Amino acid sequence: MRAARFYDRGDIRIDEIPEPEVKPGEVGIDVAWCGICGSDLHEYLEGPLFVPPAGHPHPISGESAPVTLGHEFSGVVSSLGEGVDDLQVGQHVVVEPYIIHDDVDTGPESRDYHLSRELGFIGLSGCGGGLGEKVSVKRRWVHPIRNDVPLDEAALIEPLSVAYHAVDRSGAKAGDFVLVGGAGPIGSLTAAVLKARGATVAVTELSELRRQRVLDTGVADHVFDPTKVDVAEEVRRLTGGRGADAAVEATSAQPVLDTLLNALRPQGVLQVVAIWTKRASIDLFQVVMKEIEVRGSIAYVNTHPSTIQLVESGAIDLKPFITGRIGLDDLIDKGFETLIHHNETAVKILVSPSGEGL
Amino acid sequence: MRAARFYDRGDIRIDEIPEPEVKPGEVGIDVAWCGICGSDLHEYLEGPLFVPPAGHPHPISGESAPVTLGHEFSGVVSSLGEGVDDLQVGQHVVVEPYIIHDDVDTGPESRDYHLSRELGFIGLSGCGGGLGEKVSVKRRWVHPIRNDVPLDEAALIEPLSVAYHAVDRSGAKAGDFVLVGGAGPIGSLTAAVLKARGATVAVTELSELRRQRVLDTGVADHVFDPTKVDVAEEVRRLTGGRGADAAVEATSAQPVLDTLLNALRPQGVLQVVAIWTKRASIDLFQVVMKEIEVRGSIAYVNTHPSTIQLVESGAIDLKPFITGRIGLDDLIDKGFETLIHHNETAVKILVSPSGEGL
Repeated sequence: MRAARFYDRGDIRIDEIPEPEVKPGEVGIDVAWCGICGSDLHEYLEGPLFVPPAGHPHPISGESAPVTLGHEFSGVVSSLGEGVDDLQVGQHVVVEPYIIHDDVDTGPESRDYHLSRELGFIGLSGCGGGLGEKVSVKRRWVHPIRNDVPLDEAALIEPLSVAYHAVDRSGAKAGDFVLVGGAGPIGSLTAAVLKARGATVAVTELSELRRQRVLDTGVADHVFDPTKVDVAEEVRRLTGGRGADAAVEATSAQPVLDTLLNALRPQGVLQVVAIWTKRASIDLFQVVMKEIEVRGSIAYVNTHPSTIQLVESGAIDLKPFITGRIGLDDLIDKGFETLIHHNETAVKILVSPSGEGL
Repeated sequence: MRAARFYDRGDIRIDEIPEPEVKPGEVGIDVAWCGICGSDLHEYLEGPLFVPPAGHPHPISGESAPVTLGHEFSGVVSSLGEGVDDLQVGQHVVVEPYIIHDDVDTGPESRDYHLSRELGFIGLSGCGGGLGEKVSVKRRWVHPIRNDVPLDEAALIEPLSVAYHAVDRSGAKAGDFVLVGGAGPIGSLTAAVLKARGATVAVTELSELRRQRVLDTGVADHVFDPTKVDVAEEVRRLTGGRGADAAVEATSAQPVLDTLLNALRPQGVLQVVAIWTKRASIDLFQVVMKEIEVRGSIAYVNTHPSTIQLVESGAIDLKPFITGRIGLDDLIDKGFETLIHHNETAVKILVSPSGEGL
């Protein structure tokens, strides 16, 4: 089968590799669609970051570069490993792409398995990935979805879970005024989750196209061009002088961090979901004087059931955020390069590893 | 009467001023002892910060420099304004030194009056202060204490309330391992509150004398010299590899902020109580990957009843943290200058404005 594999920074190759063996307790999946994530771009431009470099195998997967990429994917069950009896071949599924030690509690009540030691990700740290035609995944991490949910939209359930977990951590609730920094994939999906929860959503974003998209899709009530208006001032105007109840940082850009902090009301929450690869500067005087809470969130933990429900019920429509569909051969030229150089127009580009969906 | 008044940076004078009028709803207090606070030093060295500069009156008090300093004080009720009928002359009291708009809810359930608009402090923003012989304070901000609590120790109830509120905000509870950054007055009192709550308390501090004091007083279980050991590593060793449940930053020093962040467990809380007059650098990658919460806290809100109870019950002994007793005439030479140049040996220096306690 064919798969996109990460060798080193700037070196991703489409290889012919053996199909994965479906071991006991695993589920064989024919990948339908796999999204390209900001993390994949980070690996390509600045990596290896999450990918274990050649010669340094990941402590759980035991694998190192080259590894198959892709962790935002949907597919169809193609075979069931020994002992898996609650799924059927042909079932549509999405994957929560974790690689976690067997002794970690990953039960439905856990709120922290995503922070367990040496954690890795399918599609970054070994165990195959969604940018290969087939993948075999432990039953625990396979989530069935209704077969009438389009598989392309289903591929966005993974980033939607990132957004959902960030909103959960922020404590934002119905009636709150929330400012989102950035209308890239995570910022846009965060706005969608907030809107579905009944919050008033404002988005600050440099790109006019991205601003227009979150307005047109109805996930933002207000958008601000930070080069044209004082965003914090506008937020205060819209909240009777008070400020935003919460803000979500989805850009890893210093001016956005400052703007969100300025726009928050006393005791507001600044939720950081972006991956900052450089240190940030922060006005701790303001954090103290306004008693702000700056909270980090990473990935998701027992989040998929809720996000799948939001999609199945129609509360969130993921289709508008799909801006491209390509095959494996176009991964770099039409995928990565578009996202790197034209990220104004693109939100989520999906890849069909087998080419069947194209 | 005599009072220490702030005129401008580096310019504090001992003036003869009229005694305050005790208006309806107010309580006239003969000040017994008043502590010198880090904020007072900030005003002296870098101010005016909280003090309204000459010609720029505070919006609530209507006063500007010169203003009487001192907001950490105890005293004895000397007279009661019209309508105050639940206190008696001779009652020992401490003051919660707020200047707040009349329309703000300051009731017992409020969790945010300390963040209300244009808030000021008695002893910084007008309305007299504890570095004068007498002061008149609205009944709402006067807290009676048992007359058998020594008035010198009672003067530390205000900074103890700062520490108590910070611990409250951090969510630290019995059995938690908490790392405190700095063993100055607020760091030491924070350790005392944590210890009284049943936490295991570790303190990182450069000064050997300060380390020794928190050990000798029993408020710290462990102390670290950050020039000698890897504090984060030591904390992990003491917590079975996990890390601290919470950390309290009471120094406004960059290396301490970094150390506390490194020492925290996943989903730990970094409570910032220090006043940072410059921006900080922060490793947001770690905040995100460990899902840290960085929380600011300022002053106190409905905290005094709890801290008074801790002192009255003997759960916290404030006496060891009093390291000097002076009169008004020695305020600069033996007070401010000692704290600025010899803060290794000094924790809290108390001033007796009338000289009676000396």
